[in-house]
Amino acid sequence: MQAAVFHGPGDIRIENVPDPRIQDPTDAVVRITHTAICGSDLWFYRGQQEYQEGWRTGHEPMGVVEAVGNEVRHVKPGDLVLAPFAISDGTCEFCRKGLQTSCLHGNFWARDLDGAQGEAVRAPLADGTLVRIPEHARGDEKLLEALFPLTDVMGTGHHAAVSAGVKEGVTCVVVGDGAVGLCAVLAAKRLGAERVIAIGHHEDRLEKAKAFGATDLIFDRGEGAADEVIEMTRGGADHVLECVGAASSMGMAIRVARPGGTIGYVGVPHGVVEKGLDIMGLFFGNLTLRGGPAPVRAYMPALMEDVLAGTLDPSPVFDMTVDLAGVPDGYAAMDERKALKVLVRV
Amino acid sequence: MQAAVFHGPGDIRIENVPDPRIQDPTDAVVRITHTAICGSDLWFYRGQQEYQEGWRTGHEPMGVVEAVGNEVRHVKPGDLVLAPFAISDGTCEFCRKGLQTSCLHGNFWARDLDGAQGEAVRAPLADGTLVRIPEHARGDEKLLEALFPLTDVMGTGHHAAVSAGVKEGVTCVVVGDGAVGLCAVLAAKRLGAERVIAIGHHEDRLEKAKAFGATDLIFDRGEGAADEVIEMTRGGADHVLECVGAASSMGMAIRVARPGGTIGYVGVPHGVVEKGLDIMGLFFGNLTLRGGPAPVRAYMPALMEDVLAGTLDPSPVFDMTVDLAGVPDGYAAMDERKALKVLVRV
Repeated sequence: MQAAVFHGPGDIRIENVPDPRIQDPTDAVVRITHTAICGSDLWFYRGQQEYQEGWRTGHEPMGVVEAVGNEVRHVKPGDLVLAPFAISDGTCEFCRKGLQTSCLHGNFWARDLDGAQGEAVRAPLADGTLVRIPEHARGDEKLLEALFPLTDVMGTGHHAAVSAGVKEGVTCVVVGDGAVGLCAVLAAKRLGAERVIAIGHHEDRLEKAKAFGATDLIFDRGEGAADEVIEMTRGGADHVLECVGAASSMGMAIRVARPGGTIGYVGVPHGVVEKGLDIMGLFFGNLTLRGGPAPVRAYMPALMEDVLAGTLDPSPVFDMTVDLAGVPDGYAAMDERKALKVLVRV
Repeated sequence: MQAAVFHGPGDIRIENVPDPRIQDPTDAVVRITHTAICGSDLWFYRGQQEYQEGWRTGHEPMGVVEAVGNEVRHVKPGDLVLAPFAISDGTCEFCRKGLQTSCLHGNFWARDLDGAQGEAVRAPLADGTLVRIPEHARGDEKLLEALFPLTDVMGTGHHAAVSAGVKEGVTCVVVGDGAVGLCAVLAAKRLGAERVIAIGHHEDRLEKAKAFGATDLIFDRGEGAADEVIEMTRGGADHVLECVGAASSMGMAIRVARPGGTIGYVGVPHGVVEKGLDIMGLFFGNLTLRGGPAPVRAYMPALMEDVLAGTLDPSPVFDMTVDLAGVPDGYAAMDERKALKVLVRV
């Protein structure tokens, strides 16, 4: 079968790889129908994160179950499924608490496992990891594309909102206009935020934020954006959603938070400490910093319900669609910021 | 009048300074009866924090009101009072929320204000800042010494416990065996923690932690202490109280926190980022980092009630008492770790 393989910064190739097969009785094999390229894939693509030559790529799998191991109970061949970016057993202490990203037997796609940017994957711990999509969605491409972001970006944006304590009637600030930031806007509105101030570097993406429900758009030209937010909120927001993971965005989040406020952060930190995290701002503001890799698995049922009901649709985050052969072009487009997020129809 | 004045690292002198007088109608003048030397005073004493020659020192005032400005309503001359390390107006948005350390008109003792290590202070915003001590405590030296730590260390330890989410029945870890760490043990027990694991570098201080209710003592020799805690909690504690503010103690707090857990931190960070905060540990554990300078003012009424009722007594944190002339010796003793915390009876 064919799959995307990393060969070095800027060098993703579609190659022949061994077909996946059941290795453990808790495995399933899933034939991928949809996957995507994630903003976080750009870290290794740009050489800003260690990644070994030969590792497969992609952590957003959706597809059809092809085979299951002896111990798999919750899915069967033919089922339409999606999976979070994190593998989890669904039974350990942390999974039961809804923190599947800390699963005692968990793992993440790619690296030593199959990557989702390929024709098929072996899905370990299938009962915990895979989530069935109702039959009526089969063939409904529009609905499938609305469901697909639950594998990562929609759940991650939701985690930012939950971690920041967003609830009915609040004012919040979303830092970042990437796919996660946009999904965070959707999530904040869904949780009842009255005012959602979106800060970003791209006017076109901020327009998407507006379509997703942002009430105020702040185009960050480098200076003045934080002051603008502080002024419009008369001293900062109680709830800040940091959706990038860069030093600059974390700095912005700390600056625009109101004393006693909470920052929900969900982007894997890159250079945040090395470039000088403003811990004095965090400390003297009595701010709460809460977040981490989103337990997308925990959020899937509720978010799926809303997508199926037609009240939630994150699919506009995709502005480019490729087939498997087009994955290298998709990376290049995202790297050059020509695409916000690339959907891969395998 | 006489007061302690900073002249450089290791050089605190008792000198003549101008008598305080009412400057603003919201001021009071307080004649100090008790004050103390704080672990945080050692940062400038050791030259690890910028502090100007000529600045007064001390931020833990207790004494008798001598004069009040025209607008002061809540205290009158003759009243016995104490004050938190932070000045606050008691009326702004943050004061009303119980976050007096972010008071819009707030300040901190010493630097451009009077320091508490002296015969008297001008207390700005007296109605917000000063808290009356019931008359029956007058002359009861034992009770006054039990009340005095509410000016800082007891409220700060309590803030660590509150920030870490300590509640009935939990297991928590207290990192640090200084006065704040010891008060954090008291606070955690008071909030109902069932198991309180105290980590420190000094066997004698850990014995005090035990007397304060710590159920497990971990003597940190440099290696293995974190593993010991992780083993005894089978994976870390949900509630960690970081009571130092150093890079090593923050690192310890992150290591011993259970995934999804909360770290309450209350020591002003020193070198935490510069020496490499483990933000990946914080992030991948989905830990919450919450804290800052303790709004001691908010906690005073409830803590005072317990001290007056005889159910709370943090005074054993003092192991040396000096008069005003003895303040330089007190600093030296704390610097050399010959004293844990020095009480100053003026």
